[in-house]
Amino acid sequence: MLSFCRPVYWLGKDTLRVSAALFAENRRRLCQGMKATDGVAPKSVVVLQGGEQKQRYCTDTDMLFRQVHVRIGVPLRGQNTDSGSTCREASFEGISQFQVNNTLLHPVIVECRLTKTDMELEVLRYTNRISSEAHKEIMKHVRPGQKEYEMESLFQHYCYSHGGMRHTSYTCICGTGNNGSVLHYGHAGAPNDKTIDDGDMCLFDMGGEYYCYSSDITCSFPANGKFTPDQKAIYEAVLKSSRAVMAAIKPEVKWTEMHRLADRVHLEELVKIGILHGSVEDMLKVHMGSVFMPHGLGHLLGIDVHDVGGYPEGIERVNEPGLKSLRMGRLVQERMVLTVEPGIYFINHLLDQALANPAQSCFINNEVLTRFRSFGGVRIEDDIAVTASGMELLTCVPRTVEEIEAFMADRGKSF
Amino acid sequence: MLSFCRPVYWLGKDTLRVSAALFAENRRRLCQGMKATDGVAPKSVVVLQGGEQKQRYCTDTDMLFRQVHVRIGVPLRGQNTDSGSTCREASFEGISQFQVNNTLLHPVIVECRLTKTDMELEVLRYTNRISSEAHKEIMKHVRPGQKEYEMESLFQHYCYSHGGMRHTSYTCICGTGNNGSVLHYGHAGAPNDKTIDDGDMCLFDMGGEYYCYSSDITCSFPANGKFTPDQKAIYEAVLKSSRAVMAAIKPEVKWTEMHRLADRVHLEELVKIGILHGSVEDMLKVHMGSVFMPHGLGHLLGIDVHDVGGYPEGIERVNEPGLKSLRMGRLVQERMVLTVEPGIYFINHLLDQALANPAQSCFINNEVLTRFRSFGGVRIEDDIAVTASGMELLTCVPRTVEEIEAFMADRGKSF
Repeated sequence: MLSFCRPVYWLGKDTLRVSAALFAENRRRLCQGMKATDGVAPKSVVVLQGGEQKQRYCTDTDMLFRQVHVRIGVPLRGQNTDSGSTCREASFEGISQFQVNNTLLHPVIVECRLTKTDMELEVLRYTNRISSEAHKEIMKHVRPGQKEYEMESLFQHYCYSHGGMRHTSYTCICGTGNNGSVLHYGHAGAPNDKTIDDGDMCLFDMGGEYYCYSSDITCSFPANGKFTPDQKAIYEAVLKSSRAVMAAIKPEVKWTEMHRLADRVHLEELVKIGILHGSVEDMLKVHMGSVFMPHGLGHLLGIDVHDVGGYPEGIERVNEPGLKSLRMGRLVQERMVLTVEPGIYFINHLLDQALANPAQSCFINNEVLTRFRSFGGVRIEDDIAVTASGMELLTCVPRTVEEIEAFMADRGKSF
Repeated sequence: MLSFCRPVYWLGKDTLRVSAALFAENRRRLCQGMKATDGVAPKSVVVLQGGEQKQRYCTDTDMLFRQVHVRIGVPLRGQNTDSGSTCREASFEGISQFQVNNTLLHPVIVECRLTKTDMELEVLRYTNRISSEAHKEIMKHVRPGQKEYEMESLFQHYCYSHGGMRHTSYTCICGTGNNGSVLHYGHAGAPNDKTIDDGDMCLFDMGGEYYCYSSDITCSFPANGKFTPDQKAIYEAVLKSSRAVMAAIKPEVKWTEMHRLADRVHLEELVKIGILHGSVEDMLKVHMGSVFMPHGLGHLLGIDVHDVGGYPEGIERVNEPGLKSLRMGRLVQERMVLTVEPGIYFINHLLDQALANPAQSCFINNEVLTRFRSFGGVRIEDDIAVTASGMELLTCVPRTVEEIEAFMADRGKSF
């Protein structure tokens, strides 16, 4: 019997062994795509720059290196539809002696990244497993009186020491109390520095990455482990929309419709809670959903946390509140990996705007709403892989109110 | 009695309260320096950009924001003597309507940063205390069989959760065994991913920062807590040079002479160990010291880990092996903060070069040297502040062989 010793990337202990075959397969897919492209001369070579060591401003302090993407390199001459940043092509001394085409590669790379191979799904399952465990570690350790950044620190430590994840996929968002309604909390101006209060909802959006493969998970739960009736009501409204979307996801479904579905469920539930009243159909016509969820339902995920390809040529963003922030306009396809991240937030300037707009204020019970003014927000974010007939849930954390309360009640014993 | 409520920057719990007066004092110093500069028009305004939110390559993923320097901003039109990076001046829409001078500011800022105020020293003492504690935490937890990156992760977690330090001052270097001889270990190509072996020396160079004030500490110790005779001999040789330098530091001393002093002590000790033989004076003439310590003795430290101002106009680097890597060519001044970081490394390509050079090989006992070929290295790095008559040691970790062995022997009890 023959046995093959295949090269692997591995960080020891219980971390995942990533076969070099994953990258070989991706190179093969890229070449196949290039060969099918008009205008590629025979015997052409693809040159991709793996990354660049950068320094902090004008100092000689190196920033922590991160590859562009292990998988298939720089999307040449492409533009990111969110940040507007343009990619630089690879370059080396003597390149002028070659015939260079800088336009053919980008669309092929984007198509390659849009759907994941089996080996890539394996890595994405791993990043989700480790990051899910790290979120559970937080739920076990969080206590009123701590600082939000202690949770960020613990998350990173868990992911790195148990999972070999030196990088997070994005800056950790550890919003508690009203900070849960600040969508990009955790960044420069608000670096997770609030003290966690008893009675706060936590909204922790954090994900680790392994060999550049990302995860993106949000858990929302009460800091003290026990939901108040209002917290339970909002949380279950979001969970309902999350599960409604998951039940509907399958190939050929329009992602914009999934976003609209989440909006609809939120509005129905907000009527039941008493914050809104009237016809949900009429609310949808005036975009009431975006008052409570101003961001998109979810996005492609892979080598970057917001993976490329959400809007290929010919597909435009829908210019409506909420939907215009959706990062993916395509039909859902098998092997896509996506986040499903509905949320309900009480963002005071958006609420005030809605109250000042007669077309929207007519649906609002302001007395009830007032009770939620410092609530913050709830987001439930899972990562999923689309299958032939539905989806696979990659994230594994306690999700129902009962699961969360039981899990957190148990924590006393772990000390 | 009147009491004043002064604004402070603070991250809660036991972290340091940094008074806004620190920054006011620095602005005052800057203005004073500018007023003393020829060519500054009356009623001029200094505009400094605090930093820039950057993204990873062409993605929309924000990198963790870090201010340029809280203290006094961008050194305009300056060039870093190590990295060659040039600073960008601040800019805003409409700046063209102002008369702008981009050359006057840089030298004044550099002079301001060269020496530290009392309030700055207080912050630097704090960063050193927390980072020292984190190093001790590592010494308590390290075990053969672990991965180097687990130690990096634990260090970062300690500094962040106990000290409010979201950033490290530089990428952690966690070299064990032979990796201790790789001066920039820990970076992209060698990301602290070796398994720690029994018998390895650890060389851990890590420092946290607080409101941009850096620390830079290296501890060297055996992974299993007990020095072998060879490890003890090399370690004590380095400790001797460290302490000789510290005893000599005071205002007006030449920093290049401190580097030469460390070289001399190393060579004397290497003769005693038997790796070298012959006249140390003769060895110094052929730069034998740089075979074992190819880097500089230490550098200015402050807002950046390699702080600015080491080579003002008129002072050139000494073009000799070793000394040419020294980042500071000035006379030592009161209120300078510096690292003292002598080291002895067994870097095989440098040893082979020396053996191939008759002027150097005549001093080498190759039989003895062979025993040290996979030793790695020892570096002992402390941060110091220069006082009127000597220096203050900011770093506080076990340093003698006896202190380290006693501290690590005790660790069984902490679990």
